[in-house]
Amino acid sequence: MDFKVQAKDRKSSARAGEMVTDHGEIQTPIFMPVGTAGSVKAVQQRELHNDIEAQIILGNTYHLFMRPGMEVIEKAGGLHKFNGWDKPILTDSGGYQVYSLAENRKITEEGVTFRSHIDGSKHTFSPEFAIDVQRTIGADIVMAFDECTPFPCDYDYAEKSMKMTHRWLDRCCTRFDETEGKYGFDQTFFPIVQGSTYKDLRKQSAEAISSFDREGNAIGGLSVGEPAEMMYEMTDLVCGILPQDKPRYLMGVGTPANILECIALGVDMFDCVMPTRNARNGMLFTSEGIINIKNEKWRTDFSPIDENLGGYVDTNYSKAYLRHLIMSKEILGAQISSIHNLAFYLWLVKEARQHIVAGDFAEWKNIMVKKVSARL
Amino acid sequence: MDFKVQAKDRKSSARAGEMVTDHGEIQTPIFMPVGTAGSVKAVQQRELHNDIEAQIILGNTYHLFMRPGMEVIEKAGGLHKFNGWDKPILTDSGGYQVYSLAENRKITEEGVTFRSHIDGSKHTFSPEFAIDVQRTIGADIVMAFDECTPFPCDYDYAEKSMKMTHRWLDRCCTRFDETEGKYGFDQTFFPIVQGSTYKDLRKQSAEAISSFDREGNAIGGLSVGEPAEMMYEMTDLVCGILPQDKPRYLMGVGTPANILECIALGVDMFDCVMPTRNARNGMLFTSEGIINIKNEKWRTDFSPIDENLGGYVDTNYSKAYLRHLIMSKEILGAQISSIHNLAFYLWLVKEARQHIVAGDFAEWKNIMVKKVSARL
Repeated sequence: MDFKVQAKDRKSSARAGEMVTDHGEIQTPIFMPVGTAGSVKAVQQRELHNDIEAQIILGNTYHLFMRPGMEVIEKAGGLHKFNGWDKPILTDSGGYQVYSLAENRKITEEGVTFRSHIDGSKHTFSPEFAIDVQRTIGADIVMAFDECTPFPCDYDYAEKSMKMTHRWLDRCCTRFDETEGKYGFDQTFFPIVQGSTYKDLRKQSAEAISSFDREGNAIGGLSVGEPAEMMYEMTDLVCGILPQDKPRYLMGVGTPANILECIALGVDMFDCVMPTRNARNGMLFTSEGIINIKNEKWRTDFSPIDENLGGYVDTNYSKAYLRHLIMSKEILGAQISSIHNLAFYLWLVKEARQHIVAGDFAEWKNIMVKKVSARL
Repeated sequence: MDFKVQAKDRKSSARAGEMVTDHGEIQTPIFMPVGTAGSVKAVQQRELHNDIEAQIILGNTYHLFMRPGMEVIEKAGGLHKFNGWDKPILTDSGGYQVYSLAENRKITEEGVTFRSHIDGSKHTFSPEFAIDVQRTIGADIVMAFDECTPFPCDYDYAEKSMKMTHRWLDRCCTRFDETEGKYGFDQTFFPIVQGSTYKDLRKQSAEAISSFDREGNAIGGLSVGEPAEMMYEMTDLVCGILPQDKPRYLMGVGTPANILECIALGVDMFDCVMPTRNARNGMLFTSEGIINIKNEKWRTDFSPIDENLGGYVDTNYSKAYLRHLIMSKEILGAQISSIHNLAFYLWLVKEARQHIVAGDFAEWKNIMVKKVSARL
């Protein structure tokens, strides 16, 4: 994988860059729609291409391992072939879902033993196994197997956990480097900074992770319930340590305002279930602010969802129609709102990129953060 | 509305025709996807146009009356404007849903009083009110308010109900003829033949309905649980009486085989929730037969859903991927299978039409009925 920083903002740490993978280029900063079980919920693959202009999507290793399982994915020739998405894919390591979804989980130095939330079957994920699974899935970007600590987390646990994550990273790197992609294209590997909300631990972790000198680096363990200011502080600190010439991926973040603020701190890649999950509940992110489409005030508002966005979904459907679909629990409501929210997130990072290149990002960001956070 | 029969099959009563409405032409025989609450479930409007090639869709008066309600539809400028579908729409009269969904319903000569299945609110639908509502919805084809008798139904009830349906028809016609479309385009009105499964009642009803001399006629009260042979017998009898030069619409039918058999009996228009409802449960209708995609045998079958159909959904997604989505209850599974099933239904009636025009419909139909009924 290649990465080049193409422009830097003068008044913030924001940068515009380009990653090149065997499945195509990614213009950063970028938001990556989450395709949990091999599908971005309620969105067709051609809609990801044409309406949303997604450049890379996520797959969740835990979900894909459970269903359809590695035998099916491998026989298909990898996830790209299986789900018909031909652009880049990043997979998480499965760790986060093991902690949040699985039952009876037990963490040891070797790895994590747990029972599936679907059928109760017993499994062990180790650093080596998480790499093997991601080799089989065929992700363009493979993530380290780490422990994502909750918030709040006491210092001793956070430190112990971080150190284990670093030892696990060693094992991940070894396994990744002694294996090869299965489907004829290159895969790259990103380690993950941990350390909870403790500055000294974050510093230690960022330095340790940097020393591995991989092609990109991620920041994990944030956006898990801590105040936004704390998340910004940790992100700022870590971005100051991670190498300038490599992409930085802030995992699981966040609201449109979070994304703009973290772009300003030097983050290049984001993912979050918020745009799709909230869409299904009728919460729309727009260029003018946040809409709860269930509110009575939209009942006879026949204007487009977001006039600044354009595109089929915004041109063909009105707020009143979308409200009716969401109120009536029609599947089409989830489809329209998911496409809209993701299109908005991709529009937002594209706008951010243009302002970084144009040199007025910081000013624009301050105005936009207020705008996109307002409740309409 | 104009209707012309363009070709007739020599060995059956099948015919190919064309209806012309203010929202465009309809090539018959035609299948009409059901858009219950103003949305064909899990299908975008552009997918109805481009992937499914739908020429007309249904709306359900009862559902639309309950949600979003007539105030919203009227302010939008009618259902076409509200849901962004610019081709013809047919609405049922609400009768069928009042009988099957509503609570505490009471049928009198005046109409039907019932409570909403959504919020328990009390309403009365009369023949006049059903016409008024369909004027407000702005359907291109407005249906008579009738009583759809269940199966089985004793002779006395069937006769009494049929006679009331005829008296209601009189009132529907009067109201329809003394009112006008609200949105600047023409609407037409179809009466409905009833009479349960009794030949003499069906004959009486078909003759009574014909005497009203409207622009098209419908056959109701079938596909409600009676054996297929009985449905064919009633349809055959009624088609023999209804005028040759007007379209015939068999309501709520049916399986692909039912549709082919009834085209052979002289039916021009069909609707049914089966392709979409069954799609959501993983039952696929294909040109080679019926697939239960949940079956283990499709787990690693990476072939397209139906090679004979082509189109994006069949080209981009495999049976194995669709199986995974349905098993994982992913919304995209409902989307793909609904588009596929509807595309298949529209393909089937288009093929039927081509064979009617080519003059070999009866032979083709006999082969296809077996093919499309086979379980793969």
